[in-house]
Amino acid sequence: MNNDVNTSATGSTGPAPEPMGADIPSTVPTHWYNLNADFPEPVPPALHPGTREPLGPQDLAPLFPMALILQEVSTERYVEIPEAVREIYALWRPSPLVRALRLERALGTKARIYYKYEGVSPAGSHKPNTAVAQAYYNAAEGITRLTTETGAGQWGASLALACSLMGMTCEVWQVRASYDAKPYRRFQMETYGSVCHSSPSELTDAGRAMLAADPDTTGSLGMAISEAVEAAAKDEQAHYALGSVLNHVMLHQSVIGQEVLVQLAEAGERQADVAFGCAGGGSNLAGLTFPLIGRNLREGTTTRVVACEPAACPSITQGEYRYDHGDVAGLTPLLKMHTLGKNFVPPPLHAGGLRYHGMAPMVSHAVELGLMSGQAVGQDEAFAAGVIFARAEGIIPAPESTHAVAGAVEYARSAESDGQVVLIGLSGNGVLDLPAYAAYV
Amino acid sequence: MNNDVNTSATGSTGPAPEPMGADIPSTVPTHWYNLNADFPEPVPPALHPGTREPLGPQDLAPLFPMALILQEVSTERYVEIPEAVREIYALWRPSPLVRALRLERALGTKARIYYKYEGVSPAGSHKPNTAVAQAYYNAAEGITRLTTETGAGQWGASLALACSLMGMTCEVWQVRASYDAKPYRRFQMETYGSVCHSSPSELTDAGRAMLAADPDTTGSLGMAISEAVEAAAKDEQAHYALGSVLNHVMLHQSVIGQEVLVQLAEAGERQADVAFGCAGGGSNLAGLTFPLIGRNLREGTTTRVVACEPAACPSITQGEYRYDHGDVAGLTPLLKMHTLGKNFVPPPLHAGGLRYHGMAPMVSHAVELGLMSGQAVGQDEAFAAGVIFARAEGIIPAPESTHAVAGAVEYARSAESDGQVVLIGLSGNGVLDLPAYAAYV
Repeated sequence: MNNDVNTSATGSTGPAPEPMGADIPSTVPTHWYNLNADFPEPVPPALHPGTREPLGPQDLAPLFPMALILQEVSTERYVEIPEAVREIYALWRPSPLVRALRLERALGTKARIYYKYEGVSPAGSHKPNTAVAQAYYNAAEGITRLTTETGAGQWGASLALACSLMGMTCEVWQVRASYDAKPYRRFQMETYGSVCHSSPSELTDAGRAMLAADPDTTGSLGMAISEAVEAAAKDEQAHYALGSVLNHVMLHQSVIGQEVLVQLAEAGERQADVAFGCAGGGSNLAGLTFPLIGRNLREGTTTRVVACEPAACPSITQGEYRYDHGDVAGLTPLLKMHTLGKNFVPPPLHAGGLRYHGMAPMVSHAVELGLMSGQAVGQDEAFAAGVIFARAEGIIPAPESTHAVAGAVEYARSAESDGQVVLIGLSGNGVLDLPAYAAYV
Repeated sequence: MNNDVNTSATGSTGPAPEPMGADIPSTVPTHWYNLNADFPEPVPPALHPGTREPLGPQDLAPLFPMALILQEVSTERYVEIPEAVREIYALWRPSPLVRALRLERALGTKARIYYKYEGVSPAGSHKPNTAVAQAYYNAAEGITRLTTETGAGQWGASLALACSLMGMTCEVWQVRASYDAKPYRRFQMETYGSVCHSSPSELTDAGRAMLAADPDTTGSLGMAISEAVEAAAKDEQAHYALGSVLNHVMLHQSVIGQEVLVQLAEAGERQADVAFGCAGGGSNLAGLTFPLIGRNLREGTTTRVVACEPAACPSITQGEYRYDHGDVAGLTPLLKMHTLGKNFVPPPLHAGGLRYHGMAPMVSHAVELGLMSGQAVGQDEAFAAGVIFARAEGIIPAPESTHAVAGAVEYARSAESDGQVVLIGLSGNGVLDLPAYAAYV
């Protein structure tokens, strides 16, 4: 990887943000792991939405810094993490891997259950792992402003956090329904110094057209993406950032699973026999499990990986594997993925982070190659597992994370052989989702 | 300490909750530290509200387990932490001590700033340090139900968490104004399986009388205390729990400062030159600083301790040092403390945890002996410091904690000599207080 790229989409150049000289513990990963180095066959490329030819780096240059574009197509197994990013990771990483003794007792299982907890980040989820990296590479290429969309707000808050730490400004278009009904994440963004707009807004052509067509619209993620992309494209100092789906996001999240490999070994475990992660766009699942899958491929371990997705938005278990757009308008590149179709509208769901019609191409590819499998979980089943977990282990899981908990709970309850090691990816906490728990309880 | 007490207020006995055999890292403290062993003169005793004679253990027995009553009057320097409590502490302890490099840069200070972050607990604050211990000792004496009061809800949520982990039930009376306006903490309690009542309620004599007198009352902490105490007194299986002020609470919180001593040494620092903690009832401040003060007294270190309290509720800097009641009705024992008078009604304040008319007797005693000093901080000044901290370090501090941050920020900005070590007690995060930040920003 060349992190010292001197050309960017805007033609501006800038020095990489300097590390501060902090003592970084050796337990903070030094490299990201890239499953593209170990896949037995390569991931199908993204295609240009007009030509349907494979995308070239310059096609993405208006929106992303060259360092991230190169990571998007990299097949290097390990990519060095810049020191300035490691210093920020060290504020909460390594995240805890905890033996869930009380949960084991509550379930009466013979399995040994561990959970990897990403909720210790300042934003409360795994999202800052990539937000910080993306903000860093943009700052290094002279970009001073990032735009993005957000639904419930976890990604917007994480990018706001990252921009604050990297000295950049951040502008977020939040789906109006969430903007109005769930203001806490917006308050979080504003506390970090970001600006958050209700989408559709009067600030973009796309937003004005949408409002003209339907002044009372509650907005959609697809519309918010269009506004954020338009705003970035119109400002030479601005780029756009995406919180999941793309290869470079999977790469950055690999710190989760790499830490798990070390922490499980320290706990005296040879491997996780089965790992459960929740799957929306795929970034938390990939971060948790790609390093484990890579080890399976290289070293012959046999960790089974289960992608737990909502029964109401079942892209892996019910979707088709084909090229589809990432957005409703069909402006984004075509990605080969499991998809329910770009026009699929998931029902309202407390796990807002799992309401996406598609799935990360690398995750979809892993499923097609038989390296992981999907499992659909109903919302009530997920919350039931979340409550069991909260009362046993103290942490109230994010609604997204409860899907992984539910998969693990079902598995552990029926585990007949002694001593199986079950791993749960706990992607975040549910502190700002307590009304959903109250509705369930 | 005798943890195997066989007699309790109710006459019931029970086995102590068994440890689960977890591997507890050696970095989790093994003992609580008791400043009562090192005070140059003893803390004035609590007095019976009727006789004004020093309280005996049996006076407290209807409400508290004997183990806690004995801790209340203990002068042992170190009290062993039961293994079952350490196992739960290990879920989030040791909490991080972090060098605040970005804050230092933002302030342009020559000082080295560290913060000790208690927001990593499942409840988001330091409160579980004592909640878990109190639940344990009650369970060990056969108590199956705890009652308490709560204002904004941090203490109620922490006791609900602890009861859930110890297999007990928990019943919380929450001041009606908070119950209605800030439901998230109540949802948290309910997710942990606790019951939360709006206070005053129809469930107690005290509550019914209050409602009869004023059906539209918004409630008060003093009334909620009365209801929780009455409910515990009427149920042989129930005890009452208090989240601050008392000596045994200060004892349990000492894990914070003990970890700081180890962590500062690991960072190569001889001592904190000055430590800032926020002061409401005093438990976080005491937990952070009593181990440092004890070291000053025993080993001649010179850590200066500053208690940062809200200018709107300035018990240390403006109150009298005298015997006063802990509650409005005057039913609780008389405590020698800095007090604004039991009838003092603080104005509405975002830092709900600091709205108390009195101060822990041990903290007050330390102030009188010159072992720490008080500093009043205005609410705007506190939030301004909280925003600086959030944008530099990523963590949004609890409104209570911003008072300590403000004290440290002011000090660090004017520090003229190089290399002073400044310690901030970050008692919790402000995730559920984001509306207050939004109002300020």
